[in-house]
Amino acid sequence: MENAVATPQTASVITPTELLEHWQGHRSLTRRVIEAFPEKELFEYSIGGMRSFAAMAQELLAIAAPGMKQVATGQIEELNEEIKEATSKERILALWDQSTEEINTYWAQVPEERFRERILTFGKYDNVVWCTILYFIDNEIHHRGQGYVYLRALGIEPPAFWDR
Amino acid sequence: MENAVATPQTASVITPTELLEHWQGHRSLTRRVIEAFPEKELFEYSIGGMRSFAAMAQELLAIAAPGMKQVATGQIEELNEEIKEATSKERILALWDQSTEEINTYWAQVPEERFRERILTFGKYDNVVWCTILYFIDNEIHHRGQGYVYLRALGIEPPAFWDR
Repeated sequence: MENAVATPQTASVITPTELLEHWQGHRSLTRRVIEAFPEKELFEYSIGGMRSFAAMAQELLAIAAPGMKQVATGQIEELNEEIKEATSKERILALWDQSTEEINTYWAQVPEERFRERILTFGKYDNVVWCTILYFIDNEIHHRGQGYVYLRALGIEPPAFWDR
Repeated sequence: MENAVATPQTASVITPTELLEHWQGHRSLTRRVIEAFPEKELFEYSIGGMRSFAAMAQELLAIAAPGMKQVATGQIEELNEEIKEATSKERILALWDQSTEEINTYWAQVPEERFRERILTFGKYDNVVWCTILYFIDNEIHHRGQGYVYLRALGIEPPAFWDR
């Protein structure tokens, strides 16, 4: 205990590879939530004036791979939440899988020290890289949780939260 | 790039102190979501047969400080999701603030190397400590996202997701 007070906490809790696995685990669950929606309800169902789950998934697609591209290349990407090709569940799932590959590819290009540097994501959001990536993940969990309510309201059992 | 391939990624992305701040930031937002509910709806409102947001908040209370106590002391706690005292919004918020302090206190007692050790949380969930804590946080974001839908369905504007 006294040791913990004397030594400032600066060492590793999570490595880059672990953070990637954590994110991809979440993305695999989100993919199953998209799959669980019937085609029509994915694009049209809504509660309380909120967006459809397809629109939320489009936002997640717009953030994930383009965000990681910026982390890897330093090149500022514009945030484009209107993914025009994402017009069917099948297409969204294909784009999801493509993003999975792109994230892995960009991730492998990121040197360790980059995770603690500042970044202006999409030219607008100033933060440290690891905070930015956690924000991407948190935002996904947040919207997916909303998708769970849509599914329950539609009488559909969502996939188990703990199963990644 | 070639460097990143040659060197395995093992260094720090997130320090323990940063992880604590990240969690407490989320907890402060969740507190404001609890506050945003009218008293009656906090305990009674539900969509699709799901639990009330009060019941979800009780689950979060049951996990957070007792979970951190186990991380700090190694003593196995039983998961008790029925927080009997949490019978009003005021009481839930008071328990929330008490948990905030307890989490900080236990956290200060955790030596750095502990975050990479395995733990059997609540005698049931086997995982590495940092994964366990991220699970607590993710579970909170998940249920809070559900609370956002409840609020929207009730015609109440939830606090901004990015404001911690």
